[in-house]
Amino acid sequence: MKQGNTICAVSTGTGITAISVIRISGAETFDICKKIFFTGGHKTINPETKKRVYYGIIKDKERIIDEVVLTLFHSPHSYTGEDIAEISCHGSPYIRQEILNLLVKHGAHIAKPGEFTQRAFMNGKLDLSQAEAIADLISSHSTASHRTAINQMRGGFSKKLRSLRDKLVEFTSLIELELDFSEEDVEFADRNTLLNLIKEIHQEISKLTTSFELGNAIKNGVPVVIIGRPNVGKSTLLNALLNEDRAIVSEIEGTTRDTIEDTLNMNGITFRFIDTAGLRVTKEKVELLGIKKTHENIQKASLILLLEDATANKEKIKETLQEVEKMIDKERQHLILLLNKSDKVKDNKNNFHNISVPFIQLSAKERINIDALTNLLSESINLSPISHDEVVVVNARHYNALQKAGLAIERVIEGINIELSGDLLAQDIREALHYLGEITGEVTTDEILSRVFANFCIGK
Amino acid sequence: MKQGNTICAVSTGTGITAISVIRISGAETFDICKKIFFTGGHKTINPETKKRVYYGIIKDKERIIDEVVLTLFHSPHSYTGEDIAEISCHGSPYIRQEILNLLVKHGAHIAKPGEFTQRAFMNGKLDLSQAEAIADLISSHSTASHRTAINQMRGGFSKKLRSLRDKLVEFTSLIELELDFSEEDVEFADRNTLLNLIKEIHQEISKLTTSFELGNAIKNGVPVVIIGRPNVGKSTLLNALLNEDRAIVSEIEGTTRDTIEDTLNMNGITFRFIDTAGLRVTKEKVELLGIKKTHENIQKASLILLLEDATANKEKIKETLQEVEKMIDKERQHLILLLNKSDKVKDNKNNFHNISVPFIQLSAKERINIDALTNLLSESINLSPISHDEVVVVNARHYNALQKAGLAIERVIEGINIELSGDLLAQDIREALHYLGEITGEVTTDEILSRVFANFCIGK
Repeated sequence: MKQGNTICAVSTGTGITAISVIRISGAETFDICKKIFFTGGHKTINPETKKRVYYGIIKDKERIIDEVVLTLFHSPHSYTGEDIAEISCHGSPYIRQEILNLLVKHGAHIAKPGEFTQRAFMNGKLDLSQAEAIADLISSHSTASHRTAINQMRGGFSKKLRSLRDKLVEFTSLIELELDFSEEDVEFADRNTLLNLIKEIHQEISKLTTSFELGNAIKNGVPVVIIGRPNVGKSTLLNALLNEDRAIVSEIEGTTRDTIEDTLNMNGITFRFIDTAGLRVTKEKVELLGIKKTHENIQKASLILLLEDATANKEKIKETLQEVEKMIDKERQHLILLLNKSDKVKDNKNNFHNISVPFIQLSAKERINIDALTNLLSESINLSPISHDEVVVVNARHYNALQKAGLAIERVIEGINIELSGDLLAQDIREALHYLGEITGEVTTDEILSRVFANFCIGK
Repeated sequence: MKQGNTICAVSTGTGITAISVIRISGAETFDICKKIFFTGGHKTINPETKKRVYYGIIKDKERIIDEVVLTLFHSPHSYTGEDIAEISCHGSPYIRQEILNLLVKHGAHIAKPGEFTQRAFMNGKLDLSQAEAIADLISSHSTASHRTAINQMRGGFSKKLRSLRDKLVEFTSLIELELDFSEEDVEFADRNTLLNLIKEIHQEISKLTTSFELGNAIKNGVPVVIIGRPNVGKSTLLNALLNEDRAIVSEIEGTTRDTIEDTLNMNGITFRFIDTAGLRVTKEKVELLGIKKTHENIQKASLILLLEDATANKEKIKETLQEVEKMIDKERQHLILLLNKSDKVKDNKNNFHNISVPFIQLSAKERINIDALTNLLSESINLSPISHDEVVVVNARHYNALQKAGLAIERVIEGINIELSGDLLAQDIREALHYLGEITGEVTTDEILSRVFANFCIGK
């Protein structure tokens, strides 16, 4: 990316729409506008005045391309920090293409995905974690994913990282004092103070890495799998669950497009039902899922719904339950036993009281106790960090960097315990600082940047 | 539509995009913005100042929905003529929906398709033909369709209609003078002057109705059909034609979506190839088109390409040609004879010189003379009215109204010739004025309005 390079792109959607917005950013923005935009005959924009919004026409020599509204944003008070112009034109694919062609003819370049935001980052308008939050915000699909993205975009996470950084720098300066005066008989910071400070830092980083489980569930949806024997009613259960809130799911356009998974929004959380294409297509007539496939799906899920027939032999059910329990990681996965066709049995209420997982008796067909199940699903996700606006890590890149920073901090703790010298401790601290800096982009590489911005929309 | 009713809608596209624009129009626009938009803590917009562009957040009570740019347009200097606010938010379907919900909660209504433009019409910002030109502009797909729409939107057609109207009013006043003083022995306008004036009007209306053939071809594309015996090379020809300019066609996103017809943009004109789905699917192996189907397709086309094998019997070809000529209306349809596989014959250059339609010898497979064919296709459309910015009627509603006005004028001419009384002539003139008024919307009904605006995009 060269400085002084002016870029342009359509920032709104494709197809035929009421209006479209074309964004131009860079040093030549206003000069280019002066060559193609005219208002009231031959007048054009005058960026020197305070006038920000112009109404007029875009012309290619004498040919009128469109009547538009042009809005100017002066550097540094703009999204990118550069001079920006936004052309609000008629939403015709033909006109958009003609205006882009005209801009390119006058020296602008077509922007790469995320290039506007990348410039905003380069110009210090936001840090890298805030830039990533913008992409998350645009693809947010539930109250919770929207809330974490807004919080991160507005600097909640950056503030937290700054505070961690400050504590690490404080730690380093204490160590360096010790180093500087190590020859003398003065004790500046006793090792206990250092240990307490670094343990506090470690705890905060651990809390952040732990929050990623929730953050990931919020961002990508909570993966749920329904397992059980053929004909036990799995697809009936899926339909009963989805019908419950189908309106909410379909109201938000675009959320389920291109996915082969059914999703359900409940209490601000999105639940993704894994491998439902099979359930939907086969209508319980052909069950292609072998043991291996079931095992794979269980590994992918956070919530495992084991569906059994309430009229079946109780001991057999318990056996299956025990088998499934062996497959799961209780730290990160929840297993729920569902006894279907509960309307067909009478006195088994207490039959399952001594089992170790939550269970619900329901009838998928008669829609009995479906509410109890949806409540249990949403209760399985503890949303209190979100509702208290605590920082929740939602990005795998951040999670990996935090884990590496955490490992470095653990080495510092170990180092203090074995009375390692200050300069060796300082080395690990610098490593921790490096990884925290990667998150905000203080430390960065072209590779990280291109990976971050490649996932952005064109025009953002 | 009640006055004081404030409307809102997303004016940009669907899906996940960089930015979206939500438009609000009506008397309560600024009051609603004051309740949901905040900048720098608890400040909000102040429409009394000259500040037009605000940066801030949209909030629902304490919950932040998005960071946005808000632009205000004061009545009457806005698209609708009412107070307008445009919220430029992140292009997330979730956020768009949340902002719309918030606007509705504060008293706005979701706009119907075209309701913003309908208000612009109601408030005298543009006439009905200009409003229709906006819809045409948005769906324009070629240089020519874009140019006619821009010209009509900017009032070219309205000006022409105003001039016609003025002449009709002049005519009426001459007649009325005659009526007022008919008892007296004074001659105000001799009937020859009247006749010349009305003939001039008639000629201008005829020119407009005649232009509809071109206008319709420009707006909807020129319908072309390729006919010929099985295995003569129809689909090879189609592919040769489309490959020629395939890049141009696909460059403009969305133009060919949802159509079963292949289109080709040449010299600013779109050509639509009728019933090519069959040609593409069957790859000449199965030719399902019977005589009846071919006949139907010929009726729909403006250009008929009869493809024959250059190696076939010359007399047979001439016979087929004559049969096809009988089917077409030479006034509105062009027939072109194409002799395929010309590379396989040597000395037949002059064999077809005495036929009455243009013909080209080509090879679809070897791509010989395909250029000559595309040139002939674009020459068959006379674009000079467009390049001279003459008024071209593109709208069937306008065409129908002009035809009715023309009939009324013909009755006036006839009336003058048979020396009909002035009050009877005036009646027909009023009818002509009525139909011209329907085009611009000076005379209108709810039915016409709802039909016109139903075809608009949401948010326009």
